Amino acid sequence: MNEQVLTQLRAAVGAPNVLTEGDLTPWEQDWRKRTRGKALAVVRPGSTEEVAAVVRASAAAGTPIVPQGGNTGLVVGGVPDASGREVVLSLTRMNKVRAIDRDNLTMTVDAGCVLQNLQQAADDAGLLFPLSLAAEGSCTIGGNLATNAGGTQVLRYGNTRELCLGLEVVTAQGEVWNGLTGLRKDNTGYDLRDLFIGSEGTLGVITGATMKLYPRPAARVTAWAAVPSMESAVRLLGLALQQLGAGLTGFEVMGQFALSLADKHYPQLRVPLFRDHPYCVLLENSDQESEEHARGRFEHLLEAALADGCVADAVVAENIAQARGLWHIRESIPLAQADEGLNIKHDISLPVSRIPVFCAETDALLQRQIPGVRLVNFGHLGDGNLHYNVQAPAGGDMKAFLRDHEEQVNTLVYDQVKRFEGSISAEHGIGALKAAKLPEYKSKVAIGLMRALKQALDPGNVLNPGRVLSV
Amino acid sequence: MNEQVLTQLRAAVGAPNVLTEGDLTPWEQDWRKRTRGKALAVVRPGSTEEVAAVVRASAAAGTPIVPQGGNTGLVVGGVPDASGREVVLSLTRMNKVRAIDRDNLTMTVDAGCVLQNLQQAADDAGLLFPLSLAAEGSCTIGGNLATNAGGTQVLRYGNTRELCLGLEVVTAQGEVWNGLTGLRKDNTGYDLRDLFIGSEGTLGVITGATMKLYPRPAARVTAWAAVPSMESAVRLLGLALQQLGAGLTGFEVMGQFALSLADKHYPQLRVPLFRDHPYCVLLENSDQESEEHARGRFEHLLEAALADGCVADAVVAENIAQARGLWHIRESIPLAQADEGLNIKHDISLPVSRIPVFCAETDALLQRQIPGVRLVNFGHLGDGNLHYNVQAPAGGDMKAFLRDHEEQVNTLVYDQVKRFEGSISAEHGIGALKAAKLPEYKSKVAIGLMRALKQALDPGNVLNPGRVLSV
Repeated sequence: MNEQVLTQLRAAVGAPNVLTEGDLTPWEQDWRKRTRGKALAVVRPGSTEEVAAVVRASAAAGTPIVPQGGNTGLVVGGVPDASGREVVLSLTRMNKVRAIDRDNLTMTVDAGCVLQNLQQAADDAGLLFPLSLAAEGSCTIGGNLATNAGGTQVLRYGNTRELCLGLEVVTAQGEVWNGLTGLRKDNTGYDLRDLFIGSEGTLGVITGATMKLYPRPAARVTAWAAVPSMESAVRLLGLALQQLGAGLTGFEVMGQFALSLADKHYPQLRVPLFRDHPYCVLLENSDQESEEHARGRFEHLLEAALADGCVADAVVAENIAQARGLWHIRESIPLAQADEGLNIKHDISLPVSRIPVFCAETDALLQRQIPGVRLVNFGHLGDGNLHYNVQAPAGGDMKAFLRDHEEQVNTLVYDQVKRFEGSISAEHGIGALKAAKLPEYKSKVAIGLMRALKQALDPGNVLNPGRVLSV
Repeated sequence: MNEQVLTQLRAAVGAPNVLTEGDLTPWEQDWRKRTRGKALAVVRPGSTEEVAAVVRASAAAGTPIVPQGGNTGLVVGGVPDASGREVVLSLTRMNKVRAIDRDNLTMTVDAGCVLQNLQQAADDAGLLFPLSLAAEGSCTIGGNLATNAGGTQVLRYGNTRELCLGLEVVTAQGEVWNGLTGLRKDNTGYDLRDLFIGSEGTLGVITGATMKLYPRPAARVTAWAAVPSMESAVRLLGLALQQLGAGLTGFEVMGQFALSLADKHYPQLRVPLFRDHPYCVLLENSDQESEEHARGRFEHLLEAALADGCVADAVVAENIAQARGLWHIRESIPLAQADEGLNIKHDISLPVSRIPVFCAETDALLQRQIPGVRLVNFGHLGDGNLHYNVQAPAGGDMKAFLRDHEEQVNTLVYDQVKRFEGSISAEHGIGALKAAKLPEYKSKVAIGLMRALKQALDPGNVLNPGRVLSV
C-alpha cells in the first residue's frame, strides 16, 4: 500500500521531490526539538496543481498529510507523528512573489515564500509588509497564515489574518479554491478565507495568498520607559494610543527579572533603567511625517506620562543604532532565559484591563505553590499578549523542576487564564501540543462547531489529523 | 401544525411578543420597498435564552426562521418570503450595552442595539466606535455583523468584521455559543466568529458581540478636491495614504453627473468645483494631535497633489459646519438620484488599481448599448468600492428603461466586474436578491465549500433558507 502511494506521489511531483531516505531531520524534528517524528515521505510540490495531485493521491490511499512551511512552529503542528504513516507536504519550493500591485497596495505570493523575502520584496517596491516575528528568516507566509502568526507589529497592523485579503487553497478533496482577491470589501458569501487562516492545515492546504501592503513610514522612533507597576504600564498604553493613535506600532512590556536575565547573560546590551523598577516598556512610534515630528510626539507623550506618574523614567533612542539596541534587548529575553536554564513557557492573552490583577494573583499563587519560583514575564502588552514563563528557583535542579512541576504549573496558569477570560494560546496555535488540553478551556459548543466544520471539509480526516482537534 | 409552533413560541417569549395580527409591515416589507412578504409570526425575544428557545421550537417543527435587526438591508435578506410559513425573529428588544471596558477598548452589546446608540455610548465613555453608515439611526449591530456592513470609515477601521472581537451566537440547534471575548489575539482553534459574520443569518443567530473601540481623534478635517480623471483620483489616494497614513479616514469619489444631480435637486448644498472636472474627491483627515496639525498636513498633501497634477483645484473646510456641508453633498447623491428617477444600482468593488480602466471601458460599453445612458458613479474609492449606478437617458421613460434594460445592464456590469476580478456585492451582501445570481460569479469550488458549511451547521435548513445560497 505504501509503495503504491509513493509511486503516485512520485508521479505527481517527480521522483526527486519525494524524499524517503537520508537525513530527514529538518522536516521530521520540530523547531524546539521537543519531538521527532517519522515521515512516510517528504513531498515537495512545485505548483498548486502538484499540491492538488498530492492531496488526491494521499486522500485516495487514506494517507494522512502534514502540511509544512518553514517548520518554525512552536506547538508541534507541522511535523509528522511517530507512526511513519504520514506524508510531510513541504511547500518551500513554491516561493515566488506572483505579483505586486502598487496602486492596490497588495502582493500575491506563493505559500512557501519566506517572510523576510516578502518584507524585502515590499521594500524594493517602496512599500511596507509589516508582519514581523522572530522566525522571519525561516518561516513561510503559508505557515504564518495557517497559524495566524502575531509578532511585534500586531498593535497597529493586526495578526496575519488581518493582513490577508485572499487565499488559494487546495481542499481535502484535492480541488483548488482560487480565492486570490485583492479586494478590501467583498460580501458575496461565507468567509472561507478566515476559516482556513488559523486552521493549522487541518481544513485545507494554503498554496497562495494576496496580502496587504502599506506605505512605508517616514520615520520610526523607539523609546524605553520604566514604569512603577503593571497598572502604570496599562495606563501608559492608554495615553500612548490616545496621543499617537495608529502611530503606536510597538508596545512591549518586560518584567524586571526578565530584564535581569538579559543583563546577566548579555551584559554588552546595557539594559537601561531596570534595576529600580518592576517593569520597563518599549514603545515604537511610526510616523508618516518626519523623524522630528515622531520625536516631538514622543516627548509630548512622555512628559504627560511622567506628570501622570505612570512613567518613572524614560529614554528616547537618539538614532537607529540605539533603537535597534533597545529592540535587541527585548528580543534577547527568550535567549537569556534559555541560557539561564529550562523553563515552562506560556503564550497567553488577556483583556488588557485585567492583566495587572491577573499578574499579581498568578504570581502570588505560583510563589505559594513553589517558593522561590522566578517569573520571566514579558510580551506584547498592546495586544494583551504575555509570554508568562516560569523559571525554576535559583540554584535548583532544573530538570527535576520541569519533571515535578510542569503539569501543575500549566494547570495553575491556564486555570487563571480561563478565570480572567483569556486565551491559552495567543499567537502560537494548538498543534499537537495543546490539542488534548483544548476541550478543557473551550466550551463544548465551540468544540462541537469545530468538529462539525472539520467533518464537513475533511470527512476522511486526511489533513493534519489530531492537530487542533484531538482524535 | 402552525398553531402548535405558535403555542411553543408564545411559551418561549411570552404571548405579547409573538405578533401574528395587525399591521406587520415594518417586519414584512423590505427597506427599499421592493418586496413584501408574509410572516407566520413576528417573534420578539428579550434574551439570548429566549432566542435559543425560539430556534429550538422552530427547528423541531421545521419552521424556517428569518433573523431580523433594524430591517434596513438592501438585498432582501431579512424579510419573510410570501409563503406565510416563515417566522421573523426580531432582535430589537435585545438592546442593552452590556459592558464597556475602557482600558481594553471594547464594548459588549446586545445584537439588537441600534448603531447610533452604540456610537453615542462610546462617545459618552470618551471613546470612538467608528462604524458609520447611512442607516445608522435604524440599523442594529447584529444586522451590521450578519451582513458585514461597510460605510464611510472602512478605509481606516475596516468593515464590521474588523471591528468585532467576539460573538455570542445561537446555533441552528438552539445552543448558545458564548464567544464573547475581548481578546486581540486568540489562536485556539477555528475562526468561528468570522464564519458567522457576513453569513446573513443563515448559519446562526448573532445575539451579542464584543466590539473594538478607539481613542477619539483630537480633530477631523475635511477637504474637497477636483481631479482631472479617475487615474488622478487613484494617484491622489496613494499620495494621501503615504502622507496621512491611518489619519486618512475618508476618501470618497464622485462623478460629475452624480454631483450635477445633487446640485440640481439640492441647489442649497452649493456643490463646489464640479462643473469643470470629471470627478471630485472628498477626503477626511482624523488627527490625534490637533486641528492645526491636521490642517497643516492637508495643506502639505494638496500642495504636493497640485504640483503633481493629480488635483486640479481644492478646498479645505474651514470649520465643522463646512465639513458637514461637504459630507452632506456626498450623502445626498443617492437621494438626488432617486429624485431624478428610477435607476439601476450596483454595489461593486474592484482592485483600486483597475478602477480607472474598468470605468472607462464599462462606461463606453453601456453608452454603446444604450445611447444617452447616464452614469451616477460615486463611492468609497479608498476601499475600491463604487456605487456604479445607471440612470435612464434624459427625458426617457424611466419605467420602460428599467423593464427593458435592467437585466441586460446588470449582466453587462457584473460580467465586467468579473473580468476585472471584482465583487458584485461589496458591502450589501447577497440576501434573496442576488442568491440565484451568485453561482455565476463565484467558482464552483467556493459554492461547494459554502454548501458544505451550511449543511454542517444547519442541516435542517432552518435559518434563513434560500438567502445567500439559493435552494
